[in-house]
Amino acid sequence: MGKRLYLPLLFVFVTVAAGLAASAVCNADPAPLPSWNDTATREAILTFVRGATTPDSPDFVPPAERIAVFDNDGTLWAEQPMYAQFFFILDRIRELAPQHPQWRDQEPFASVLKGDVKGALAGGDKAVMALVMATQAGMSTDEFSRIAADWLAKARHPETGRLFTDMVYQPMLELMDYLRAREFKVYIVSGGGVDLMRGFSEKVYGVPPENVIGSSLKTKWDDGTGTPRIMRLPEVDFIDDHEGKPLAIQRVIGRRPLMAFGNSDGDLQMLQWTMAGSGRRFALIVHHTDAAREWAYDRESQVGKLDQALDEAKQKGWVVLDMQKDWKRIYGDQP
Amino acid sequence: MGKRLYLPLLFVFVTVAAGLAASAVCNADPAPLPSWNDTATREAILTFVRGATTPDSPDFVPPAERIAVFDNDGTLWAEQPMYAQFFFILDRIRELAPQHPQWRDQEPFASVLKGDVKGALAGGDKAVMALVMATQAGMSTDEFSRIAADWLAKARHPETGRLFTDMVYQPMLELMDYLRAREFKVYIVSGGGVDLMRGFSEKVYGVPPENVIGSSLKTKWDDGTGTPRIMRLPEVDFIDDHEGKPLAIQRVIGRRPLMAFGNSDGDLQMLQWTMAGSGRRFALIVHHTDAAREWAYDRESQVGKLDQALDEAKQKGWVVLDMQKDWKRIYGDQP
Repeated sequence: MGKRLYLPLLFVFVTVAAGLAASAVCNADPAPLPSWNDTATREAILTFVRGATTPDSPDFVPPAERIAVFDNDGTLWAEQPMYAQFFFILDRIRELAPQHPQWRDQEPFASVLKGDVKGALAGGDKAVMALVMATQAGMSTDEFSRIAADWLAKARHPETGRLFTDMVYQPMLELMDYLRAREFKVYIVSGGGVDLMRGFSEKVYGVPPENVIGSSLKTKWDDGTGTPRIMRLPEVDFIDDHEGKPLAIQRVIGRRPLMAFGNSDGDLQMLQWTMAGSGRRFALIVHHTDAAREWAYDRESQVGKLDQALDEAKQKGWVVLDMQKDWKRIYGDQP
Repeated sequence: MGKRLYLPLLFVFVTVAAGLAASAVCNADPAPLPSWNDTATREAILTFVRGATTPDSPDFVPPAERIAVFDNDGTLWAEQPMYAQFFFILDRIRELAPQHPQWRDQEPFASVLKGDVKGALAGGDKAVMALVMATQAGMSTDEFSRIAADWLAKARHPETGRLFTDMVYQPMLELMDYLRAREFKVYIVSGGGVDLMRGFSEKVYGVPPENVIGSSLKTKWDDGTGTPRIMRLPEVDFIDDHEGKPLAIQRVIGRRPLMAFGNSDGDLQMLQWTMAGSGRRFALIVHHTDAAREWAYDRESQVGKLDQALDEAKQKGWVVLDMQKDWKRIYGDQP
């Protein structure tokens, strides 16, 4: 074969190879969202994302503006009968009790140590704050990260016996992957403490620490010991819930989300803020309808109450996901 | 040519093509940092980045942990004789004066309107805060973004006559590109107001709003008018300077930087925090030594004072960049 034939052939091969490589990147999932049933909910997501990512679509959105925000508790992982972060607090109180003998006679600690969670919570927000500060303040950020990682590696849900990190919703993992493959920036915006979430978000969700927004304590710079540390103070810095969510999104991301996913009234303002932006946007509420495979709850629930946001979703035509009908499986190891 | 020869050849071509495509991505700049002179400073950067990005290097750092933080004023763009954000405030006071006739007799506004900046600043922090609140609070975040963008599009430096956004340092633009091409996440961490910086950071620096950390005012959710707004309140939320910088880095990024770049004592704690991490890390101080092409200042300067941080850099062997010797050009349109 002479050079004359060889060169065009090389060109064809290179072009084909480059095309194959590009298409492998862009269409990595020929059947996206495999744990989702083929319902209107899945179709609404696929249709919206197709519009936002197709260059000649009237709904095209440049990659830089493809921000997707997800609540965590009840949206990405289970939140019943109590937030996982509350189990963390209870476990830490038990672990720390020997160093605090006075806790045996002091509420809310005494009730926790007796296993009486209801009694501990009888003190309301003040009791919760006392538990938070006793377990999450007074150490450096590095120390807290180690404590959180240790707990996450072994802590199990009292009813399911699963690791908490195995109670993440497989369909949502697929959705986050699907969005990232289409150049969305995926954020978690949660009422939970930001540093505990960062202890598993990257490994479990593929969401790096800088894409996690949450509640926080005030901190203090301490360079008195030669090696600088950042100390966690027993004082609330920010509660990332209800209107706190859009405020934190604006402060940290500085750009309005294109898509927002939540499951409770605490997410309502985040969804409102998202949908009040220009152009087509997407809001979805996870409705916990599956008592057999997970929990079924909404308007009357103590944790993850979904009432006003459900009404507003129906009124405004936001997508309401039905966990029982829309999801083939809840957790990744289910058939 | 039979099939037997054809197939292996195709394989070779595809492999070569894929290799070429990959190397085009990874070595996009055969001569990196063209506006930097070939000095020890440039070499220190290239050597560090090579170590952090070469998979079999003992100093290899996974892409997720490649965080690079840059101060803004005096590090990425000029800050003399006053921060650009202060010129914004002065311009806004003049624009808003007709709506505030009382300002003619009220300090610090009266001095600003007379062109007496020194007189306006005689009132110290309290005067500065009055000017900040009069110009930056009391409107929605969307409104402020529009005001900031309008100003940035036309505001010029009183001495150079350049647009402020044309007073960014070309060598630093190249450095940020160089790092991003090597999977670094580039952040701005500045004492300046975050929302004004976001008005140009993406277009000018290639740094999207979510990678800009700065000082901020408190905000408030307002859904009283039907369409929700986020209102800027006349109250400081956070000052992102000195120890505020590492605190904000920890809160927003949640991971210690691998590289940090600053130019003044306000950056010292950010550099200390970066260098106190494990493994090899990189800290650089921009020393303003070029009175002919920019400004020369350090220990005695009112703006961008570099004193303690210069001593610590020398003592600890951090890189001290000499603008006159290390940079071929300051701005992009210089030869």
